[in-house]
Amino acid sequence: MLVKDAQTVEAQPVAEAEGVRVRWLIGEKEGATNFHMRLFELSPGAATPWHQHPWEHEVFVLEGEGVVRSEQGEHPLKGGTVVFVPPNEWHQFRNTHPEKPLKFLCLIPAVGVCALPQGNACENR
Amino acid sequence: MLVKDAQTVEAQPVAEAEGVRVRWLIGEKEGATNFHMRLFELSPGAATPWHQHPWEHEVFVLEGEGVVRSEQGEHPLKGGTVVFVPPNEWHQFRNTHPEKPLKFLCLIPAVGVCALPQGNACENR
Repeated sequence: MLVKDAQTVEAQPVAEAEGVRVRWLIGEKEGATNFHMRLFELSPGAATPWHQHPWEHEVFVLEGEGVVRSEQGEHPLKGGTVVFVPPNEWHQFRNTHPEKPLKFLCLIPAVGVCALPQGNACENR
Repeated sequence: MLVKDAQTVEAQPVAEAEGVRVRWLIGEKEGATNFHMRLFELSPGAATPWHQHPWEHEVFVLEGEGVVRSEQGEHPLKGGTVVFVPPNEWHQFRNTHPEKPLKFLCLIPAVGVCALPQGNACENR
């Protein structure tokens, strides 16, 4: 059993996403073979790229205020908001608060774990 | 894309665990095929069963105070604590605060998603 404080995990910059940092809380090196837990922290005004990919996201917002954008429009985010982004759907997370960070968990399937018609397409990430 | 507040999801009692409730935030009916997100809420003094099973847990503590018990002893829990329980490891979560609830996310692989030597043993839950 692994027990640790999320704050002890290094916050790494995310390529092509200024003001966005990620802590890999539970991943391959922790022995997780099916899915992985990451903690994202967006500075005020920062956003993740507007993008899509063949794997899903399961998101839980911990604190802050923001929006998640889809092709159908924007939805507000706050602590306790749950987001499921299905495979292949375009999405973007943005911090809309002028001062506070936006923090959310974002979980993804492990490489090779993918129940999609396109099979191993999720290995391309 | 599905966006909702966790509080809008019904909190269901957990069999054989008095004072424990669970909200299934992202599961099969939301279209999640690889892993599922649940929110557990333990009343003061309540505990999950001391048990084990052939699938892992990925846990993030949202609020409250408690302990997670393993065969190696107990570890304290508070907001921000991350726990990875590997497959087949004995475990128990307990709220140790006299007044406040203990709330944590607990994610599990979907039925049939299991990278274990015993194959589909995780379908037994």
